[in-house]
Amino acid sequence: MTDKLTEAQRAADLAPLLAAGWRMVEGRDAIARTYNFANFVEAFGFMARAALWAEKLNHHPEWFNVYKTVEVTLSTHDAGGLTILDVELARRMDALA
Amino acid sequence: MTDKLTEAQRAADLAPLLAAGWRMVEGRDAIARTYNFANFVEAFGFMARAALWAEKLNHHPEWFNVYKTVEVTLSTHDAGGLTILDVELARRMDALA
Repeated sequence: MTDKLTEAQRAADLAPLLAAGWRMVEGRDAIARTYNFANFVEAFGFMARAALWAEKLNHHPEWFNVYKTVEVTLSTHDAGGLTILDVELARRMDALA
Repeated sequence: MTDKLTEAQRAADLAPLLAAGWRMVEGRDAIARTYNFANFVEAFGFMARAALWAEKLNHHPEWFNVYKTVEVTLSTHDAGGLTILDVELARRMDALA
């Protein structure tokens, strides 16, 4: 099982994501980001590419889509909070978006 | 613009969907259904196929996915409620799932 992020990892790996547009979710050890695209084709195109990475990492997002907006929440259920898998998937999604 | 469903259409077209597993959303003229699949590949595969139909119909779902579950809500924003487009997309999704 992947361990929860240490304080040192939060400073090194999580802080840059929070500075880049991710936010902490209230009441959970989870991060969230809302992506806005030009239209549904762009939004779902992003989801399709992110889905392949999620499956490859064997780590899956919670996400909501309506038309051109995609709201992503990341946390590691098995660990009960944020792990390096969330950091990796967040970085990958930012690179894809 | 597509018109909201008439009472006759609700009896003829909406009732069978509600009998098949869709539900009315509280406080909105919208229908929702939760699909459960075997895993993320199956869940996202369904979403990918439904996305192509949504774009073809130019009518898009509100949907939430976490791992093997997909929660779909359908309503027609421009019409302020349910229209035949929602019925068509719901039928198509049921056929795909």
